[in-house]
Amino acid sequence: MAKATEAAPPGHDPAAVPACEASLGSAFGLLGKRWNGVILGVLGGGALGFADLRRGVGSITDSVLSDRLTELAGAGLVRRTVTDARPPGVRYELTSSGAALEPILGQLAAWAGKHLESGGGC
Amino acid sequence: MAKATEAAPPGHDPAAVPACEASLGSAFGLLGKRWNGVILGVLGGGALGFADLRRGVGSITDSVLSDRLTELAGAGLVRRTVTDARPPGVRYELTSSGAALEPILGQLAAWAGKHLESGGGC
Repeated sequence: MAKATEAAPPGHDPAAVPACEASLGSAFGLLGKRWNGVILGVLGGGALGFADLRRGVGSITDSVLSDRLTELAGAGLVRRTVTDARPPGVRYELTSSGAALEPILGQLAAWAGKHLESGGGC
Repeated sequence: MAKATEAAPPGHDPAAVPACEASLGSAFGLLGKRWNGVILGVLGGGALGFADLRRGVGSITDSVLSDRLTELAGAGLVRRTVTDARPPGVRYELTSSGAALEPILGQLAAWAGKHLESGGGC
């Protein structure tokens, strides 16, 4: 029902379509994957161990969280360090690239709180 | 391999996990779905017909784009209007809620251009 019936206007100029899709596409190649944005948002509050991070994210499973952390680390946004504690633990924290995303995620949360029905307060 | 071995610290305070996840969760409930962010980004350049929008988004199929537009319209971010042209066409444009997201998507694209390897210039 949402399918359009119009033909492309003759002489349509592809340059009229806004630029920046490449960057936005790569942002959403990462953030457009369930949990990644929320994981980064939770880590914005500071370094966390795996169990605390999982609690903060919500209903994610261990194996999915583990996969996502590997992906986010591969993209250079999350750093994984083994702590000196006994027993040794693992902490996850944002890299400077991940931290640079935090203010944007804050704006996104504020936008959602205002404009999305299920947004809730912030 | 990324699975942690540490136990939750005794007396862990759940309030230490940062707030705003509800809003961020609802933002990514929508944007964390492939294509939605890019569709909104493309519509940020102005109203488009279905065919131009699809070209702008990239390798999306008609039926997926159609589904996404229905979802984004349901969330109040996109408006669908039938134009008076002959033959009648359909135009998609951002609502004020959708438009309020645009500056944030612009920042996200700039961040990706700077911090993600495949980000490209912007």
